Amino acid sequence: MFKIAIMGCGVVGSGVADILIDQEAALSKRFNEKVCLDKILDVRDMEGTPYAKYLTKDADVIWNDSDIKLVVMTIGGLDFAYNLTKKALESGRHVVTSNKEVVAAYGVELTKIAFENKVRFLYEASAGGGIPVIRPLNICLSGNDIYEIQGILNGTTNYILTKMSQEGVSFADALKEAQQKGYAEADPTADVDGHDAARKIAILSSIAYKGFVDYKDVKCTGIRKITSEDHKFAEKAGYAIKLIGRSRLADGKVSISVEPLLLPGTNLLSAVNSVFNAVLVKGSYIGDTLFYGAGAGKLPTASAVIGDVIEILGNPTEATLPDFTEKNAVINKADASKSKKLVRFTTRANAFDIEKFVSEEYGATFLGSVNDKYGIITAPVSDDEYAAFENVLTTTFHAVVENVVNIVE
Amino acid sequence: MFKIAIMGCGVVGSGVADILIDQEAALSKRFNEKVCLDKILDVRDMEGTPYAKYLTKDADVIWNDSDIKLVVMTIGGLDFAYNLTKKALESGRHVVTSNKEVVAAYGVELTKIAFENKVRFLYEASAGGGIPVIRPLNICLSGNDIYEIQGILNGTTNYILTKMSQEGVSFADALKEAQQKGYAEADPTADVDGHDAARKIAILSSIAYKGFVDYKDVKCTGIRKITSEDHKFAEKAGYAIKLIGRSRLADGKVSISVEPLLLPGTNLLSAVNSVFNAVLVKGSYIGDTLFYGAGAGKLPTASAVIGDVIEILGNPTEATLPDFTEKNAVINKADASKSKKLVRFTTRANAFDIEKFVSEEYGATFLGSVNDKYGIITAPVSDDEYAAFENVLTTTFHAVVENVVNIVE
Repeated sequence: MFKIAIMGCGVVGSGVADILIDQEAALSKRFNEKVCLDKILDVRDMEGTPYAKYLTKDADVIWNDSDIKLVVMTIGGLDFAYNLTKKALESGRHVVTSNKEVVAAYGVELTKIAFENKVRFLYEASAGGGIPVIRPLNICLSGNDIYEIQGILNGTTNYILTKMSQEGVSFADALKEAQQKGYAEADPTADVDGHDAARKIAILSSIAYKGFVDYKDVKCTGIRKITSEDHKFAEKAGYAIKLIGRSRLADGKVSISVEPLLLPGTNLLSAVNSVFNAVLVKGSYIGDTLFYGAGAGKLPTASAVIGDVIEILGNPTEATLPDFTEKNAVINKADASKSKKLVRFTTRANAFDIEKFVSEEYGATFLGSVNDKYGIITAPVSDDEYAAFENVLTTTFHAVVENVVNIVE
Repeated sequence: MFKIAIMGCGVVGSGVADILIDQEAALSKRFNEKVCLDKILDVRDMEGTPYAKYLTKDADVIWNDSDIKLVVMTIGGLDFAYNLTKKALESGRHVVTSNKEVVAAYGVELTKIAFENKVRFLYEASAGGGIPVIRPLNICLSGNDIYEIQGILNGTTNYILTKMSQEGVSFADALKEAQQKGYAEADPTADVDGHDAARKIAILSSIAYKGFVDYKDVKCTGIRKITSEDHKFAEKAGYAIKLIGRSRLADGKVSISVEPLLLPGTNLLSAVNSVFNAVLVKGSYIGDTLFYGAGAGKLPTASAVIGDVIEILGNPTEATLPDFTEKNAVINKADASKSKKLVRFTTRANAFDIEKFVSEEYGATFLGSVNDKYGIITAPVSDDEYAAFENVLTTTFHAVVENVVNIVE
């Protein structure tokens, strides 16, 4: 008898419940043992829901039942979920979680506690929603030296950017529509300012580079400053604007950021639209490999949780502790790499003069004007070189730079 | 001490050797045990290669060393590789194989032998080359009811089709170039006639639908009849031509085929070019998910082999036998589903008369002519309906139909 308790009957928790109920017979047959949902912990009154027979407000009902061998943690937020997760592991129960805040902040500690208690702590749903990417990184690709990850890791912002690009609407209007459709929360900060994607790229990078990456070290720029003019300039030059969580390992150091980036059409991520997510992984032997799918949503995220449950049923003990629990990654905080940049600015100077000047003196491409804004794509420059260029732009042409977005070639 | 022997020092075998040598320290540290390449079996004289110190022509050297706990099988072809694989499993050694012929033909038997001997038989490299797709299907997505798989599973044919589409060259010229570049073999039959892709879609489908699918049941059409005119008609109508291994589960029956298909731009597979592979999986909870990467090549394929080795080091026993070893899938041999079709034909009749007739009477789209060939895209039709339409085309307009290609919407 392998009973499962879910903590939190929200969107993901109820999705996990639905699948466990649907698949009880199949899972029990597959593992020669009754595998079933037994309890759902939620402090809210939820009588009348289809989950009534499983619901309890009393966590002790779970702690006191030794047949409950696995806890699915779908409660959001930090402290409350962390404490329950820790308690479950210490009580000798496996934990599968979709809570990326807890994984990003306490993943090392919780992984060690699980190992000491000879149970497993898995979190495929914490990055990339339903897309299988953590297990592939952990196992299938882990013989590679991974040297770069680029990911569209947040469905809300990808929906907003897609809407702005395809329909020419403003950030504010696209955000409002995302909120109306339930893709964005009333307070969209965690999504639009990139904090959610920062946690996810930190989780993926810790596994890939075999050293813990603290999400607080992620250089984080959101999409609030992106305008429909930026999208038009990008399109004119053959790029798409996406919010990309990106990390690179070079000379033993990890550069890691979340920022809007211009991607060329040859980058597969440029074609990932709406609420879909995708993760591009570059490895020493595999080359480029990409994982694409639903990055959020009730059933897709629950699908990832169930994948972890199946992994545990087949393999209930972890052979060894992952490397990221034993050492921290070295973060490169002063990345000196060069990149082209899209610069949007206003000026009263003559467009022809600017074009001549930036192309002849700086090898930049002038994109003309959209709605009285001007656009330039610079040659590949370091941050220092760009600052010098912007200074000239400002002093010579009285330009007011409104936004600067990096470009990936 | 966990010694590994590789059987076959060809392209993939030597790639596996390279990675095992490179990663010996990392693997040994990860699993707290010396993990190392010990022997490479190859009957050829290979003195002077970097692998000389590992090479042996005598399989008994491997069979007699009880520290060799895992055999990597990279010998191609059927009987010889099958016999060695079976012997290795019966001797209590794990086997990781890249040999899709053996997996497609003997996967059920070998999986059972492994299970009886409490060792594992893994074959991630047998479908999709380096792309992690078998483990995700087996674990991460296996809580889903998978209902469709579409895959670009053969790099050679995708290279040829991409070349034809992008440069307008003929099939013969594209094949010759693929052969010169080493992407196609001197006898390209297994690739261009779809037999290689048929084995791979059968392997993936057996796992996904939890019932054994015999590759001999795959309806198989190769790409020899595709011309540059077909590519031009496809492009005109907004499609790309790809050789797709496809299977669908409906009403308990599996329809399975390999055939060139026209894919719309909204299908992510339409953007997968050159030697790359990709697999699109549709599941009840996850929706659409896609895996993309290098489908062949020395190091990418070896990367998949190493992923299996890592899986075995972490989890040396299989909990249960997979469902496909216990039952066969029911194959739908008379798929009555309807699809649009691209029809290429010649005729001396008047183009305007044909256009009027096919559009008014049959709801088809007339694509005009390219190099004296005509193109039509039919309304969605069953095979019977199409036969009736072609009959009218032939009798009314004396058309000679040269090629018919199905369309996926």
